[in-house]
Amino acid sequence: MSKIIEMLEAQWRGNKFVCVGLDPDIQKLPKKFNQLDPEDAIADFCMQIVDATQEFVCAYKPNFAFFEQYGPDGLRALRHVVSHIHATAPDAIVILDAKRGDIGSTSSALACAAFDVWGADAITVNPYLGRDAIQPFLDYKDKGVIVLCRTSNKGATEFQNLRVGDQPLFMRVARAVADEWNGHGNCGLVVGATAPQELNEVRQAVGNMPILVPGVGAQGGDLQHVLRAGLTADGGVLINVSRSVLYASNDQDFAQAARKEVERMNVEIKHFLVEVSR
Amino acid sequence: MSKIIEMLEAQWRGNKFVCVGLDPDIQKLPKKFNQLDPEDAIADFCMQIVDATQEFVCAYKPNFAFFEQYGPDGLRALRHVVSHIHATAPDAIVILDAKRGDIGSTSSALACAAFDVWGADAITVNPYLGRDAIQPFLDYKDKGVIVLCRTSNKGATEFQNLRVGDQPLFMRVARAVADEWNGHGNCGLVVGATAPQELNEVRQAVGNMPILVPGVGAQGGDLQHVLRAGLTADGGVLINVSRSVLYASNDQDFAQAARKEVERMNVEIKHFLVEVSR
Repeated sequence: MSKIIEMLEAQWRGNKFVCVGLDPDIQKLPKKFNQLDPEDAIADFCMQIVDATQEFVCAYKPNFAFFEQYGPDGLRALRHVVSHIHATAPDAIVILDAKRGDIGSTSSALACAAFDVWGADAITVNPYLGRDAIQPFLDYKDKGVIVLCRTSNKGATEFQNLRVGDQPLFMRVARAVADEWNGHGNCGLVVGATAPQELNEVRQAVGNMPILVPGVGAQGGDLQHVLRAGLTADGGVLINVSRSVLYASNDQDFAQAARKEVERMNVEIKHFLVEVSR
Repeated sequence: MSKIIEMLEAQWRGNKFVCVGLDPDIQKLPKKFNQLDPEDAIADFCMQIVDATQEFVCAYKPNFAFFEQYGPDGLRALRHVVSHIHATAPDAIVILDAKRGDIGSTSSALACAAFDVWGADAITVNPYLGRDAIQPFLDYKDKGVIVLCRTSNKGATEFQNLRVGDQPLFMRVARAVADEWNGHGNCGLVVGATAPQELNEVRQAVGNMPILVPGVGAQGGDLQHVLRAGLTADGGVLINVSRSVLYASNDQDFAQAARKEVERMNVEIKHFLVEVSR
């Protein structure tokens, strides 16, 4: 079993299923951050969120685009935030949400960037180019490769739900990842909470494979359903929340408000686990 | 018509069809670059390639991953190279090869980064998430959005050639882009030179839409075929070459060798144009 899955299972044994997405947007930060340069503001903000929430989370998911939009200094902030997570919350998994995928030597460069430069433990990738585009990521055996399967946006159905043979495309992707790409046991899938039926189908097809589920909270996905459909005996799900945690308050108490929101989710998850174990 | 297409058509009227991909890899640079920091080496190298080749090219395609692998300083080099192209070769189009695509506010951040931060005129995007994921890019009406359709790698067939209804997935993507996504007239497609039959089919379906064709040269695609299948009355193709130009020589004369290789391609293209006009 890949080291990354061992790390995840340890988190799940501690009943930690929440992943906090780090999507820093200076327009939305509490006023006090206005005094800082954008890159310092987003780094400080994210690190305070990490400090306040780490007791309750299994993973952090920094979103590359939200750092990239502030240029090279924004990406320096990304590296700083990732280092901070590793130093202060060493059990938390850092998933770089970058939806990468390219051919040959380019994918090798992307994998090197994700794992060696930015310091991520796992990355999200896009399957459209096929397995050889993802192989350089898979070859980092101790790192996680989380493949987009059925995304949480409205337009996801345009291609992902097209029927290929007797199944929709997203199921073909799910099965390819589970049956063929997962030789090192380091794969996962992304399935949106906004597509509950699809989440059921994917879970049925992929055994215990970890599923990262965005879309609970601001996008309207239902936590109870995600748990019912996604949980396995080992755990099996990372439930991502971003905006509803990061911007739980836009005042001085933002970090405490973020902590409360994650804690509230954890309580709901624990109640669910008690219910199903009865 | 979008400003970006006007720029492209002006280049095509000048018989310029070659796009030089900027995939800098310090391992492959001429020895003299060893004395520099990686970010200075890749910037200097790319700028010398640009200076030597601009007479013969319609576009440059910096590959984000090859800069990203050198961290924030590598991306500072990217910005520097893009500025240099705009300053010294103002007619050349800068296509950021980044294969982006994400949901909602993340795609907005990606589009902002590509066009406002890195300074690109156009970007490559991945269609798997559907149109709403691409809309923030499309909304930059004067910028180009070049959608992956049929890529040049061997694994491309795994999903792209699956049949959905009466056509393969890549044709469904091509038609969606041509018929629905191109309201601002700023879309293009990527079709690999290694898939000549697919290139024929796509051209038949999408009218005059610009097609970026990677895969000639090191990947084995055939220039004559690309011209036969891809050219339209207005031009219609950007033929990308990377390694065979960048690393035409790994000695002091690398820039001159790059120039010669692009010039050689241009002569072959002009011969072809004379042949077909007879």
